[in-house]
Amino acid sequence: MAARLIESLATTEPLADLFSDQSVLQAMLDFESALARAEARVGVIPQSAANAIRKAAKAETFDIANLAVATLRAGTPGIALAKALTEKVRTMDADAACYVHWGATSQDVADTALVLLLKRAEPMLSGDLVRLTRALKKLSQDHRQTVMLGRTLMQPAPPITFGLKAAGWAASVQRSKANLDSAFAAALLLQLGGASGTLASLGKKGVDVARVLASELKLVFPEAPWHTQREALATLMCACGVLTGSLGKIARDISLLMQAEIAEVAEPGGNGRGGSSTMPHKRNPIGCTLTLAAAQRVPGLVACFLSAMVQEHERGVGGWQAEWPTVGSIIQATGLAVASMVEVAEGLTVNASRMRSNIEATNGAIFAERVTMMLGAKLGRDVAHKILQGALKKSTKQKRHLSEVLAKIPEIANHLDRTALRRLESPEQYLGSAEVFRKALLSPKPKTIKKKEQ
Amino acid sequence: MAARLIESLATTEPLADLFSDQSVLQAMLDFESALARAEARVGVIPQSAANAIRKAAKAETFDIANLAVATLRAGTPGIALAKALTEKVRTMDADAACYVHWGATSQDVADTALVLLLKRAEPMLSGDLVRLTRALKKLSQDHRQTVMLGRTLMQPAPPITFGLKAAGWAASVQRSKANLDSAFAAALLLQLGGASGTLASLGKKGVDVARVLASELKLVFPEAPWHTQREALATLMCACGVLTGSLGKIARDISLLMQAEIAEVAEPGGNGRGGSSTMPHKRNPIGCTLTLAAAQRVPGLVACFLSAMVQEHERGVGGWQAEWPTVGSIIQATGLAVASMVEVAEGLTVNASRMRSNIEATNGAIFAERVTMMLGAKLGRDVAHKILQGALKKSTKQKRHLSEVLAKIPEIANHLDRTALRRLESPEQYLGSAEVFRKALLSPKPKTIKKKEQ
Amino acid sequence: MAARLIESLATTEPLADLFSDQSVLQAMLDFESALARAEARVGVIPQSAANAIRKAAKAETFDIANLAVATLRAGTPGIALAKALTEKVRTMDADAACYVHWGATSQDVADTALVLLLKRAEPMLSGDLVRLTRALKKLSQDHRQTVMLGRTLMQPAPPITFGLKAAGWAASVQRSKANLDSAFAAALLLQLGGASGTLASLGKKGVDVARVLASELKLVFPEAPWHTQREALATLMCACGVLTGSLGKIARDISLLMQAEIAEVAEPGGNGRGGSSTMPHKRNPIGCTLTLAAAQRVPGLVACFLSAMVQEHERGVGGWQAEWPTVGSIIQATGLAVASMVEVAEGLTVNASRMRSNIEATNGAIFAERVTMMLGAKLGRDVAHKILQGALKKSTKQKRHLSEVLAKIPEIANHLDRTALRRLESPEQYLGSAEVFRKALLSPKPKTIKKKEQ
Amino acid sequence: MAARLIESLATTEPLADLFSDQSVLQAMLDFESALARAEARVGVIPQSAANAIRKAAKAETFDIANLAVATLRAGTPGIALAKALTEKVRTMDADAACYVHWGATSQDVADTALVLLLKRAEPMLSGDLVRLTRALKKLSQDHRQTVMLGRTLMQPAPPITFGLKAAGWAASVQRSKANLDSAFAAALLLQLGGASGTLASLGKKGVDVARVLASELKLVFPEAPWHTQREALATLMCACGVLTGSLGKIARDISLLMQAEIAEVAEPGGNGRGGSSTMPHKRNPIGCTLTLAAAQRVPGLVACFLSAMVQEHERGVGGWQAEWPTVGSIIQATGLAVASMVEVAEGLTVNASRMRSNIEATNGAIFAERVTMMLGAKLGRDVAHKILQGALKKSTKQKRHLSEVLAKIPEIANHLDRTALRRLESPEQYLGSAEVFRKALLSPKPKTIKKKEQ
Repeated sequence: MAARLIESLATTEPLADLFSDQSVLQAMLDFESALARAEARVGVIPQSAANAIRKAAKAETFDIANLAVATLRAGTPGIALAKALTEKVRTMDADAACYVHWGATSQDVADTALVLLLKRAEPMLSGDLVRLTRALKKLSQDHRQTVMLGRTLMQPAPPITFGLKAAGWAASVQRSKANLDSAFAAALLLQLGGASGTLASLGKKGVDVARVLASELKLVFPEAPWHTQREALATLMCACGVLTGSLGKIARDISLLMQAEIAEVAEPGGNGRGGSSTMPHKRNPIGCTLTLAAAQRVPGLVACFLSAMVQEHERGVGGWQAEWPTVGSIIQATGLAVASMVEVAEGLTVNASRMRSNIEATNGAIFAERVTMMLGAKLGRDVAHKILQGALKKSTKQKRHLSEVLAKIPEIANHLDRTALRRLESPEQYLGSAEVFRKALLSPKPKTIKKKEQ
Repeated sequence: MAARLIESLATTEPLADLFSDQSVLQAMLDFESALARAEARVGVIPQSAANAIRKAAKAETFDIANLAVATLRAGTPGIALAKALTEKVRTMDADAACYVHWGATSQDVADTALVLLLKRAEPMLSGDLVRLTRALKKLSQDHRQTVMLGRTLMQPAPPITFGLKAAGWAASVQRSKANLDSAFAAALLLQLGGASGTLASLGKKGVDVARVLASELKLVFPEAPWHTQREALATLMCACGVLTGSLGKIARDISLLMQAEIAEVAEPGGNGRGGSSTMPHKRNPIGCTLTLAAAQRVPGLVACFLSAMVQEHERGVGGWQAEWPTVGSIIQATGLAVASMVEVAEGLTVNASRMRSNIEATNGAIFAERVTMMLGAKLGRDVAHKILQGALKKSTKQKRHLSEVLAKIPEIANHLDRTALRRLESPEQYLGSAEVFRKALLSPKPKTIKKKEQ
Repeated sequence: MAARLIESLATTEPLADLFSDQSVLQAMLDFESALARAEARVGVIPQSAANAIRKAAKAETFDIANLAVATLRAGTPGIALAKALTEKVRTMDADAACYVHWGATSQDVADTALVLLLKRAEPMLSGDLVRLTRALKKLSQDHRQTVMLGRTLMQPAPPITFGLKAAGWAASVQRSKANLDSAFAAALLLQLGGASGTLASLGKKGVDVARVLASELKLVFPEAPWHTQREALATLMCACGVLTGSLGKIARDISLLMQAEIAEVAEPGGNGRGGSSTMPHKRNPIGCTLTLAAAQRVPGLVACFLSAMVQEHERGVGGWQAEWPTVGSIIQATGLAVASMVEVAEGLTVNASRMRSNIEATNGAIFAERVTMMLGAKLGRDVAHKILQGALKKSTKQKRHLSEVLAKIPEIANHLDRTALRRLESPEQYLGSAEVFRKALLSPKPKTIKKKEQ
Repeated sequence: MAARLIESLATTEPLADLFSDQSVLQAMLDFESALARAEARVGVIPQSAANAIRKAAKAETFDIANLAVATLRAGTPGIALAKALTEKVRTMDADAACYVHWGATSQDVADTALVLLLKRAEPMLSGDLVRLTRALKKLSQDHRQTVMLGRTLMQPAPPITFGLKAAGWAASVQRSKANLDSAFAAALLLQLGGASGTLASLGKKGVDVARVLASELKLVFPEAPWHTQREALATLMCACGVLTGSLGKIARDISLLMQAEIAEVAEPGGNGRGGSSTMPHKRNPIGCTLTLAAAQRVPGLVACFLSAMVQEHERGVGGWQAEWPTVGSIIQATGLAVASMVEVAEGLTVNASRMRSNIEATNGAIFAERVTMMLGAKLGRDVAHKILQGALKKSTKQKRHLSEVLAKIPEIANHLDRTALRRLESPEQYLGSAEVFRKALLSPKPKTIKKKEQ
């Protein structure tokens, strides 16, 4: 009755485990258990009850299929769990049973459980992002002098270095990681508010219980319950959206560069990835494909979350209930995208000679801008422009280098000898500030983050 | 390792089963088995191979966790399956092993398996939609004379009947169902194209094999493979989107009418639904909530599918791979919305006297338009308007009926006696074409569907 | 104060005009004018009033900036207009003034005006779709024998014909057009319901007025007002979404084939499009770019519309008000995508020799599957497979044709001479059912559309 | 040819002006003019050329309709502008003409112009957010003792204070504002990269020119051009998405509380807003409606932006071109939502007595949880529970207060006298930590923002 296969290209194994029934259920039980401990500490319920609840709160002893059905009937993920746990506790210690879920509402369980899962997801994503950034920086450093075509609208443009390209990738991942880190930090909040968010049934002790509970669960103690204020989660989902966008861009670039006719880079194969028994020459961009699939899915899922933020009064009618599967899908897709790009980036093969020959194949046309400017100074801009137009047409038609064509034109030959002309087609001579930019991208200015508070 | 809980409010049980690992895997195996049978029939592979493959194609004998992992490595849902099946067949009949998946590509398996699942989803949705329409029509018929407030921008407006309201719901479900039926019919297509969509490895026999296979699987035989032409699936996903929109509107209406202060209708409780042990008065709109959650989620998921339609050449890089989880989520959410509204509509309690008293509580203000028109004919429009403005203010301030206030105004009293005035506040007298519209909605004109083909 | 520039890449000129202030306002005035005529005909208002209203209903005499401001204040597009029109009429015929907008609600004006605009958009889109289909069919027919690489995951795969590829494009456009035609036909509905959708203020004459009005405006007369039942519009928006998806796929394919390193097709230039003064060799895929931009935008906009379908009671609070800009953007983006692809398809340059040389450049690797099958019959599958693996590695490494490498292997040479081997690499010999599929795609089976009605 | 009306409910006037043709064009011209100045300062072009360009760069002298058409032909917003400006300059100073747009690429103009517009949008949004927060805080402070029903799933729940509710709103706006502030700060970046993002045509002086230009335009000088790295803009769009979600929640709450049957708050009317000539009692929630419309639209638009982040190489094919209208729509919708809620919050009427009477109308059922706990201590939990169940049923059926029913039950009467019982139904006695939470929400802990950088 599980659903791994339909999601087989939608998650990594660790993240599939994280959102597995066992794991989700245990997170909910961890909340109930810690709540009881906190309430015992503050003196709201007997310590013996807390002990019994702790003992009963083991996911492996629950009937998950039943729970799923009962959860759907109740329309909220907390009610059925509290009931099942109460029954389990009753068999151990009848007096303790009535203290299960004491003072909490079902959304308290569900939200805090979700946050506990997110807390465990955070280092998975973060660790992979560190590896990815490192791998991209290394590529950038290694290829700081490797020239390649710039490409605009997927057409040849003046040259860049692969180092600059990889630095752009690295910096965007770094920015997105910084966003994600902040968003996680802000979202790992305890939820405890009781029926209407006032903790009324805990009398004067509500805040004390909540504070102890937050510390038990190592979560942030928020200003107040946030049952229908979902900014923190929304911002986290958005950060995932921006990150998968960044990763999708890298994956698109790499999959384009891997086309057989371009062949400038290649994903690593191995371990069942991307090869083909009948076509050993083939290296499919599988890591990029999985990443692009994530980048296709996450934006719409982010829209789901954002539009579900409009939640009514003290508990939403539909908006809140739309969140669980959405958050699960976003985190899993994002995690898969990051993990896939780690594999791609760490094993990327770069074919520098192919990069150069693809420049060569343009016969110098990408340097036309440069030549015009250079000649303009000597011949006047209009004259230079006109000459160049003719030369370019000839070059394209005859498949000869622009510089060769130009060398045959007397007005040009008078000013520039063949060597000088040939140098005009040297990519290394036309990189502008590429290296300055590359270095700046890899050592970003320390941002003084100043969130203006009103 | 499953994921029922995180999706506990996102699917019905039958649809959870439909997209379970067991079911997805069996659908893929059904394709492989039927392909072998078809190829044996057409004489492409030996009958004995087909027999062996059929015997091996039992989902319960496969290691699903392994398959999921291998699928992720391969980056496509078909490769790992074909490999595992080949190994299984090899243990039964070594010669047969090489005929597994003969001539097919991984997308053929995956797409056809998905279509087979959709084929089984169709009657589930359709059956519930028939029940829902019937229940709504009955509500409409039963309450054709039950007057209630019209409400615009959630504020009181001239009266309608609950029969008209329910007829509007019924007709919208019926329209959405017609769309869905067409979309399913158009989407239940065989996928068989081989590596590049030409069935080249089957030589001249490709089309024959495909035709027999389509008939084996009771799927439509399409003009050609549709590996990167996803209109049919996209249209089906959109039909689900429109349907959940229709259902969401009904659910919103009902959840609004269920507010304690309005209390005009109530969802049925029972079987664990919506009640509360401590607050027996409470009847939560759980069915509506689940439906609204679906209506929140599906639009973004439809956007995922649509944006993933941009698939490259003969097999997409990311777009196709984004489809499986998206389709699964959309169908499950839609099915849950329909099933939830069936339960709501079949058990809806209607409080006609509360509907009337909510009209009463407006003190006649909703009839102001009517009174103005009536008096205008006698006093002149401008005079009438001015008098009414004053009367309305007084009525609101003094919490008296508009007609009572008017009765005290000599210019009015001269023209209309108290009875006539009181009748102006009778909702039954101000229903316009409500009943005509209601009947038309329930017996729609037979549509001559003329898809203009160029 | 206009907004052409920010939308400069988002619409065609005719569609910009269609949704211009002048045009939108005139559509609203056309409703008011036709309503008055219909009411005069049915005897609800005096003919003289209808005449005065008709005379006053000229968009060019209104102050649009004022109207826009007043519309925002009122929160609905109909109120300010009705007021302004009333004032204008009053200056012509004081008695007529009170009959402006008689019995209608603001949503009646706004919805019907939108439908009138859609009615004018329909032939624009439809006409371009006919041209596009024709151009794609011609490409398919002209290139039915032009072989090219199949490409899966953007990597070389067994050959197809460009004719098959173009036929796939043509068929998908045709399917999407059929959808769009049906959706337009179903959406061109009159809206007339009055305050609560009962036409109560028109007494018994409501339906008569509505019927005459529908016929005046040449719109379909619906079963009932549809103020908060938006399926018809939603389905039309979805049809646009599917269509832009189809077009985006074609645009992606063409932009990929236009890459300098592949260079198999080229968009036409000319009339300011895609050229570059300094780089005359450059032919940017501008038409594809604009189409892809639309395909990026429309899915999210469709999600906007679908999620806004949840509209409360008899007039929505937010959902309806979200529709106008969404519909405008979707129709304009779709129209631009179609128009752009017409230009691309009608002027597409196809480089058949480059297509062949790109096949050649794979050195036969894409035929490995074929060779294995052929040799398997003679040597046994396992032996054949092993030999081929080695040969492919050698071929890739030495950059020699697979057939040449094979010719040097005695076991092979015994069975196949060099000519036979060379023929194994002939793309024409490995097209399978490509031509059958191509023909079927261009002459689709007449669909018996059977919308099951319950 | 403008498009104010179709967007009449989609923007404020100042934001309509901001994205008007005049304003967009002037922003582009400001870039060109400042670029020339910067290049003159660094010595790349003559000062006289910079002077001529500055003189020519006046939006009012350009033919915008022509520009729009040419922009669509070129497929990018910068080319046509540069050409038109060049011609204008040529008429003033022929030598200067060739220095227009020197070294820049069309995306440099377009991106920087967009950023300049965002820079002007920032204080508009920010100013309104300050006012909104202030108004909400005042409401919270004024009503810290005003009790009202908590409502979960739109059903009555234990009481809260309106002060707590408003504090929750205020805090969410404040959080969203902090996000927005950071996002704006990070997004106001200069774009200057030239053809491939290396500023190659400026030789060694590229970075100097860029730095001076950034300072001329008062924009942040980024590490490098960001032609296809769109995180900063994406994060800003997401911040708008989260903010409209927060505002939508408030608007939903208020529109629900404004229902005639609930009538606890009312939006201000006045200045053409929300009233009705025939129904003076009516106060439509227009501000909330406009806000909810924005909250419906923005999520899908955010999805558009995020999915468009996948931009190819050094200039995207479709993704970038999708951005302008998306950014324009998001900023305008967000701005309208904020402005609408300012008006609503500053003028909100709160009906405290209605809030209390709506509590009263539940007959004490919302205190059942409290009573059970209280009696449980005296009678034992099971006994207490059973008694209460019976009492609640009786209370609901007889429409009598729970406390009255309980007073008639001997077991109860023995323990609690009527006064004590009646006090159990006092909302003030069952507010738990409401006031603690309220205060904490209004004085948030100073966040130590630590963006972990790797």
